[in-house]
Amino acid sequence: MNQGNRGSTSSELLVLQFARNVSREAIAVLGERSRGQGLDLRVPPGTGMAFARLPFPAAGLLKDLQANSSIARAWVQQVPWILAGRDWQEEDTCIEVRGRRIGGGGLSLIAGPCSVESATQLSHMAHVVGEAGADFLRAGAFKPRSNPYDFQGLRKKGLEYLRETSRESGLPVITEVMSVADLDAVAEHCDVIQVGARLCQHFDLLHELGRIGKPVLLKRGFGSTLDELLLAAEHILSSGNPRVMLCERGIRSFEHAARFTFDLNAIPILKSLTHLPVVADPSHATGDRRFVPAVARGAVAAGADALMVEVHADPEEAFSDGAQSLEPAAFRALVNDLELLLPALGRPPLRGKRTPASPTAEDLYASRGR
Amino acid sequence: MNQGNRGSTSSELLVLQFARNVSREAIAVLGERSRGQGLDLRVPPGTGMAFARLPFPAAGLLKDLQANSSIARAWVQQVPWILAGRDWQEEDTCIEVRGRRIGGGGLSLIAGPCSVESATQLSHMAHVVGEAGADFLRAGAFKPRSNPYDFQGLRKKGLEYLRETSRESGLPVITEVMSVADLDAVAEHCDVIQVGARLCQHFDLLHELGRIGKPVLLKRGFGSTLDELLLAAEHILSSGNPRVMLCERGIRSFEHAARFTFDLNAIPILKSLTHLPVVADPSHATGDRRFVPAVARGAVAAGADALMVEVHADPEEAFSDGAQSLEPAAFRALVNDLELLLPALGRPPLRGKRTPASPTAEDLYASRGR
Amino acid sequence: MNQGNRGSTSSELLVLQFARNVSREAIAVLGERSRGQGLDLRVPPGTGMAFARLPFPAAGLLKDLQANSSIARAWVQQVPWILAGRDWQEEDTCIEVRGRRIGGGGLSLIAGPCSVESATQLSHMAHVVGEAGADFLRAGAFKPRSNPYDFQGLRKKGLEYLRETSRESGLPVITEVMSVADLDAVAEHCDVIQVGARLCQHFDLLHELGRIGKPVLLKRGFGSTLDELLLAAEHILSSGNPRVMLCERGIRSFEHAARFTFDLNAIPILKSLTHLPVVADPSHATGDRRFVPAVARGAVAAGADALMVEVHADPEEAFSDGAQSLEPAAFRALVNDLELLLPALGRPPLRGKRTPASPTAEDLYASRGR
Amino acid sequence: MNQGNRGSTSSELLVLQFARNVSREAIAVLGERSRGQGLDLRVPPGTGMAFARLPFPAAGLLKDLQANSSIARAWVQQVPWILAGRDWQEEDTCIEVRGRRIGGGGLSLIAGPCSVESATQLSHMAHVVGEAGADFLRAGAFKPRSNPYDFQGLRKKGLEYLRETSRESGLPVITEVMSVADLDAVAEHCDVIQVGARLCQHFDLLHELGRIGKPVLLKRGFGSTLDELLLAAEHILSSGNPRVMLCERGIRSFEHAARFTFDLNAIPILKSLTHLPVVADPSHATGDRRFVPAVARGAVAAGADALMVEVHADPEEAFSDGAQSLEPAAFRALVNDLELLLPALGRPPLRGKRTPASPTAEDLYASRGR
Repeated sequence: MNQGNRGSTSSELLVLQFARNVSREAIAVLGERSRGQGLDLRVPPGTGMAFARLPFPAAGLLKDLQANSSIARAWVQQVPWILAGRDWQEEDTCIEVRGRRIGGGGLSLIAGPCSVESATQLSHMAHVVGEAGADFLRAGAFKPRSNPYDFQGLRKKGLEYLRETSRESGLPVITEVMSVADLDAVAEHCDVIQVGARLCQHFDLLHELGRIGKPVLLKRGFGSTLDELLLAAEHILSSGNPRVMLCERGIRSFEHAARFTFDLNAIPILKSLTHLPVVADPSHATGDRRFVPAVARGAVAAGADALMVEVHADPEEAFSDGAQSLEPAAFRALVNDLELLLPALGRPPLRGKRTPASPTAEDLYASRGR
Repeated sequence: MNQGNRGSTSSELLVLQFARNVSREAIAVLGERSRGQGLDLRVPPGTGMAFARLPFPAAGLLKDLQANSSIARAWVQQVPWILAGRDWQEEDTCIEVRGRRIGGGGLSLIAGPCSVESATQLSHMAHVVGEAGADFLRAGAFKPRSNPYDFQGLRKKGLEYLRETSRESGLPVITEVMSVADLDAVAEHCDVIQVGARLCQHFDLLHELGRIGKPVLLKRGFGSTLDELLLAAEHILSSGNPRVMLCERGIRSFEHAARFTFDLNAIPILKSLTHLPVVADPSHATGDRRFVPAVARGAVAAGADALMVEVHADPEEAFSDGAQSLEPAAFRALVNDLELLLPALGRPPLRGKRTPASPTAEDLYASRGR
Repeated sequence: MNQGNRGSTSSELLVLQFARNVSREAIAVLGERSRGQGLDLRVPPGTGMAFARLPFPAAGLLKDLQANSSIARAWVQQVPWILAGRDWQEEDTCIEVRGRRIGGGGLSLIAGPCSVESATQLSHMAHVVGEAGADFLRAGAFKPRSNPYDFQGLRKKGLEYLRETSRESGLPVITEVMSVADLDAVAEHCDVIQVGARLCQHFDLLHELGRIGKPVLLKRGFGSTLDELLLAAEHILSSGNPRVMLCERGIRSFEHAARFTFDLNAIPILKSLTHLPVVADPSHATGDRRFVPAVARGAVAAGADALMVEVHADPEEAFSDGAQSLEPAAFRALVNDLELLLPALGRPPLRGKRTPASPTAEDLYASRGR
Repeated sequence: MNQGNRGSTSSELLVLQFARNVSREAIAVLGERSRGQGLDLRVPPGTGMAFARLPFPAAGLLKDLQANSSIARAWVQQVPWILAGRDWQEEDTCIEVRGRRIGGGGLSLIAGPCSVESATQLSHMAHVVGEAGADFLRAGAFKPRSNPYDFQGLRKKGLEYLRETSRESGLPVITEVMSVADLDAVAEHCDVIQVGARLCQHFDLLHELGRIGKPVLLKRGFGSTLDELLLAAEHILSSGNPRVMLCERGIRSFEHAARFTFDLNAIPILKSLTHLPVVADPSHATGDRRFVPAVARGAVAAGADALMVEVHADPEEAFSDGAQSLEPAAFRALVNDLELLLPALGRPPLRGKRTPASPTAEDLYASRGR
């Protein structure tokens, strides 16, 4: 993605979706021919897509392109995100990870402590949230902390605990990456890689994530618009990784009664603009466990595909973010609430409540990337 | 409320709740004696409350006061709103209007067009929303419009249509007041008086509303904090009117994908801080009818006591706010969604769906003010 | 302004500026003829302007209209504010009040305490700020306070002190109006009427201010966009009062290191969009006297036409806003800074430094309204 | 910085400043002894500082510590940033780079195109801005772009052009780093390394910058508070690099008349809280060249130590950010304005206007790091 057009001008953006089994050669031929016609066709590798900005109306060209057997569809794009948009893919993306799913109608539960604190703590929390119904375990090994003198995470040691706990518990794990330098290590030890709100627009990291066969949970920057969030996802998608989920975790506003402002509108707006799964994080959005269950229920009723909730056995003693962590009993109560809510919303029951089974072949395939 | 303390200092705020049947004389005696003790006791008339700021710790005084038979309770207040707070009244306020209720566990539906456009339109909309299950009809006779050259409402004529439609349909009506000068006329023609977001801190209007025996729907200013909203309510309450409901209708943030940002956190935070009913307005918060149902469901799942939704028979032709008005069919679909949702939230079924009955004696009493 | 178009559609907005000495009859004829041509011409009285929204391109019509001797100019308006815009009047508006000016190149200084506290205090402060170089005295008789239990201003008594102090000191006074009901009293006792940030969009008040022959200082709402501020001014202008000045006093943002965020961009943006004078209020924007001088200098260097600064002889004891009030010595130091700054900006020296003279005939004329 | 305390608790934060020539051994002894006393003393290497969070009042300890000859000063810190604060260093930091200075009273000018577009363009712009009075050349080789399909910078090639142009023109260059992976290459080719607004809280990058002997220009995130900006600087400082400058470049607010909101308050607030130089970037803050000069003048009058301005020979054809780039003539006019302004602010004349001389020995020393 290093080259590209100079800027987003008002010209038309032509998009081509290749036929499913098109060969590299056919794409190369198409590229050459288009350059012969003065068309600067770009082909982000591994995406099945090509695009060009046209300084003239695309209408005339479209017919020709649609007749080309290498091309499944061609259209003029109205929004700047291509692969993340509903024009590219109408139906919802469902991301599968070791037999668990995010997206596609059901509700997925991601839960766990803010930080990995010890092997014992993590193992205990995995048990607690897994038994309560969580589909995924979350915990941070690398912790982005505003204050350099605060606890910065167990780092490499934390990653090891995560992998071990995942194996023991059968729960896939989600953890945050804070630097391109740590990406390989993080990818090796977890199932879903989280990009934190502060690095939502760390474009080099996003490009690297595009080259890795792991799903990505991309948190909205607390100062980022929805457009920017979708374009951040597009950075990953256009680098070759289609398995991205977006997370609303609260934005900055003038209101400081809570730590952030949970932007409820974001959920239906994202669902209308993108096929990617939408996750809600009420813990960071409120910063206060008293308000987490209400915001969680609200997000689900508004259409969130997944919830990500911080749970800690002893919040007062948490290494980080204790104030916003639910105690286990409160988490179980929330899950009970959600179990009642889902059928009333016409959505399937919680998945995590079933007995965790050994992964199927299909699961294994899915976890290797689509 | 013209006099008062100079500023909110860090001194302790002592609050007295009078015994239920305390006489004016007893209050006068108490006031005099407290002045004798160097205590500057303030007694907002009609509230059953007195308060004083103490430059010294209140602990010593509290025992004495609690022994006084005129005083039901005495305490040191931690937050600046007294009558709106949970210290003053623990249980939820339930406001009754002509047999309809807002607050107290159930969900109330307020629906109708943005503006009164004609007698026929209003009557038709009352029929549509009433049949679908609305408890209250909303419509603006006085319209606050940023642009002076836009439609400003039918004003007095609009009020007449509102009263007539209310009589015909049996639906209590809610309409906005834009000036102290119009307050009597508005109060005479409607059942609940709305204060718009732009006048949330029009303190003189709030004081006048305190003197009027009608319930008030107070919208949060789009630039107002929750503290300011609660204090705005306190202006009304401390002027003698206990029937106030608060409305979250979206705040300004950097995100402009929707017209405003629906602050979902506001709902559980308000419910924890105040006993007053909390109304959610997804129409103004989104400015786009496509997102209204999701935000409405989210607000209810988070605990809103009522929804206020704009409905228009032909939104494209609406005099104002057409883009955010639901068509009748979409409103009916939303009501169906809510009917399924309420039992799953452990809340009673919608009230408005029952056949409107003639008001009971209790209703009549309630509508006359407490 | 009660009638008008239904909404701001995408149709063209045609504006006519009447010739200077056009008669009412000629306007009436024009209106009738335009209606005959299917043109819904609106003529806000006392403005010298007419406008119409055209559902068809205006080009054809413009030639005809420009040939009409009643019409000085006709054009298609691009922005929704007409009378406030640079299309209507290219050169800066200079507002004259009892020999003092705001706008037109120089810098005007408005200073005084937040609240009128007593006759003595006000008289003393008038002396202090007048001697230091202030052109106008500011002080609030009616105080908008978030908390109903805080000091609400001396009200009517405060107005009397203001008038007396103004007579004694020769300084014109600026004070805030909080309600339509108080408008006549306020107008009678002061020279410039202030609309506070919380009532920036109190449209009924703005309309009333349009009918009064006093200049208006309109503060930007802390949640209001510049578009809304300009349209709020347009409400006054289109009701017949051309003497409006706009005041940037800080907006709400996520940053809470200061009470508000001084939006420096607002100054050059407003100066480009409107001919109305732009006032900066660094006291409310920062809420902290330590930062007032720097923000004041910055606002002037960016082009503000006037500064409004709170000054108090003993800020710790102020009835309101003490933390943001400059002490007299700090105010004098600021004035000294500004005296050095103005020539470096190519602007004339401070006016208030001259010995206050008795008003000239021209001044008297100007103060009666244009 | 990987270890540290668990969280920012309300305990007292004790800070020790070592004596100038203290040996490593003495520090080790101190550390051991303090651990013996139950004090968890942390010593960030290369900073001359140690700190500990005390669960008990520090008063008793302070006397003892101040008697220790290894310790210059000891105090209880009130704000979480230590090395960035005025407690640590009262006098302003002045950063010297190849004979140019930022901080310490004068005004420094940083100017150049948004992106490096070609060797010729860069060389031309260096000539233009250098002749007009710029002290530093700025241009981006790595460009953070929201849209992955926009121009992403010339990258490595751009760095080469920067180094060459710097040599030719004698202007030190400032350019942005977007990834830890590029840091060595960027550091090798430029004089000051910029951290962009989107990576203001990329803590791993900040730590790496702490280990590099180049000054850092740290831009405030558009969603970051001033506290967070200061703590981001602290991440660099506590990793061993004392040469950090902070840049206000506009924050996100609800106002969209400009691209961002220039937070003028930030300048005096930062100047009061930190000794680090404060840079203002009016180009990004406004996004519109028409408003850049006014905001630039305002920032300087409020106390900014440096201005960073985008200049392009032909903004319409710029690869990025054309709308906000000044044309050369406008930049020269701005410099003229500033030359008049500085003496009126009691500040020394522009430095860049002198004929660029060959670097002095002192300059060379300064550029190698303190």
